[in-house]
Amino acid sequence: MSSVGEEVTPGLLDEYTQGFMVSQVLFAACELGVFDVLAEAREPLGSDAVAARLGSSPRGTELLLDTCASLKLLHVETGGGRALYKNTELSSTYLVRSSPRSQQNMLLYLGRTTYLCWAHLAQAVREGKNQYLNTFGVPSEELFTAIYRSEEERLQFMRGLQDIWSVQGRSVMTAFDLSPFPLVCDLGGCSGALAKECVSLYPGCQVTIFDVPQVVGTAKKHFPFPDGGRISFREGDFFKDPLPEADLYILARVLHDWTDEKCSRLLERVHQSCRAGGGVLVIESLLDADGRGPLTTQLFSLNMLVQTEGQERTPAQYQALLATAGFRDVRCQRTRGIYGAVLARM
Amino acid sequence: MSSVGEEVTPGLLDEYTQGFMVSQVLFAACELGVFDVLAEAREPLGSDAVAARLGSSPRGTELLLDTCASLKLLHVETGGGRALYKNTELSSTYLVRSSPRSQQNMLLYLGRTTYLCWAHLAQAVREGKNQYLNTFGVPSEELFTAIYRSEEERLQFMRGLQDIWSVQGRSVMTAFDLSPFPLVCDLGGCSGALAKECVSLYPGCQVTIFDVPQVVGTAKKHFPFPDGGRISFREGDFFKDPLPEADLYILARVLHDWTDEKCSRLLERVHQSCRAGGGVLVIESLLDADGRGPLTTQLFSLNMLVQTEGQERTPAQYQALLATAGFRDVRCQRTRGIYGAVLARM
Repeated sequence: MSSVGEEVTPGLLDEYTQGFMVSQVLFAACELGVFDVLAEAREPLGSDAVAARLGSSPRGTELLLDTCASLKLLHVETGGGRALYKNTELSSTYLVRSSPRSQQNMLLYLGRTTYLCWAHLAQAVREGKNQYLNTFGVPSEELFTAIYRSEEERLQFMRGLQDIWSVQGRSVMTAFDLSPFPLVCDLGGCSGALAKECVSLYPGCQVTIFDVPQVVGTAKKHFPFPDGGRISFREGDFFKDPLPEADLYILARVLHDWTDEKCSRLLERVHQSCRAGGGVLVIESLLDADGRGPLTTQLFSLNMLVQTEGQERTPAQYQALLATAGFRDVRCQRTRGIYGAVLARM
Repeated sequence: MSSVGEEVTPGLLDEYTQGFMVSQVLFAACELGVFDVLAEAREPLGSDAVAARLGSSPRGTELLLDTCASLKLLHVETGGGRALYKNTELSSTYLVRSSPRSQQNMLLYLGRTTYLCWAHLAQAVREGKNQYLNTFGVPSEELFTAIYRSEEERLQFMRGLQDIWSVQGRSVMTAFDLSPFPLVCDLGGCSGALAKECVSLYPGCQVTIFDVPQVVGTAKKHFPFPDGGRISFREGDFFKDPLPEADLYILARVLHDWTDEKCSRLLERVHQSCRAGGGVLVIESLLDADGRGPLTTQLFSLNMLVQTEGQERTPAQYQALLATAGFRDVRCQRTRGIYGAVLARM
């Protein structure tokens, strides 16, 4: 069998066109528990054995496993006329639920929620607003009422954030030496992933997690916290309710949800509550200075368009917002991950 | 600004995770008409000018254009403090609606229909069946009743197929010398893209396009055909109605829709109608001999799971189906594109 013809579409276009299929292969394999079943088996399994354990169709399962193998998400061993599958190192580390670095919850959130919102990207660009109403029939005026529209959805989102910080939390919390700040308040601190990283890294600090009552309730119910009382909770709306006094306020993946106007309002409130000599640590995915990269941050910014009322910003844009609120000495630190840190002082 | 930290997720996982976002950037830019507006302008445009012509939000439009630039779908020129955008060669050739090699209709079909079906990939693997019911509330027992569920949807699908064959039609129709076959019947010939390629390549042939009445109606109404009477239509269901006598039957992207059992039934009917010395030309995306690649064909096969009752197959699987129906001398020819050709004789 030879090969003929020259007229084909460029590989780049095929890659972009099939991108959603590749994402869904990854999401579906997580959702079905493919990587978990293979991790628990402790020996390579045939596709029929995987299908039997998952209760999934033999034909669909074999096809999914073979596609995962082409994507280097599974190893396949052939011999004796049958194929046996096992996890790759990447899958064992990031896709098995029980792995400490598992990203499974974030992937499930992306597959179940974000993927559906992105079906309306063209409409989001047209209107310049998020697509909760078109996607889920949920009005989006109160942003987090939409994002946290059910207990199940809120928990999935919080677990997803936990996954992200389980991998990237250490580098953002060590981007600057935070030991000069004994009293820390993590605004929108959610499941407490960064709070736990903070008390682990900086033995002298105490952290208050400030978040809306439903999130605090879910955090206490579903996430473990270390004994010793160094992490506490405070319920409230950071746009309206009094903020706890602190030496350092953390705003991680918070400002990107909101308009410049609301960011300024929030930062002014932070400035008013901040102790003398204190500061604010902004953790976000940072756009390049000219706003034209990196691609991942641009995609995140489009995601903010589709799912929130905010955007990703350049270091200069954060600097301007912080300066307007009264902060000075703004320093910016990228990490090897997708999140960077901006530290500003009173 | 420097860079710190080491703990990041592997690039491969980020790439797969963000694949759906990249696809939707491409689909949304097509849907909004970004590439068409830039082609019509004949000079680079600023994002405000593009937004004004599209009636889209300035902020969303700028973000979309910058992301397209990172994806090499647009060039951006900066100078005098403003950014000006123009199409790349790839976009001019494949994404502008008026280009003879435009893939825009196929991309819109993928973005509007296929993308939504793939949200249910996990369920498709679980059940081993397509997801028309879950996605669109359309029962899928009668496959093409679901696929052609509205005139608009049918037309979009037919235009999409036209796009595919506008780029890949020539290589599949020249994979074998078809000049020995004066009377050709293209079963499921749809909009006639391959029929037109056939009469253009082989001056001695006549082609009958055989398809269901609604498709024939839409083809006659919306697609141009050359004068001279070398292409004609015949309405019918190839599983039930008499097939026109022919020297060569083309089955392009047909067998992949159906189960082995239905493929065999169809091929037996073809064999019965075929003239002495005639044959059948199967055009499909071919899996590798071991079924474990190429990735694109595996994704297409999962797409068959999600959208049809069929699958992509290996050359040996087509050979077996053809042999069972009575064909012999089966030859297989890959092309540089994703489609290959299998020719079998009476």
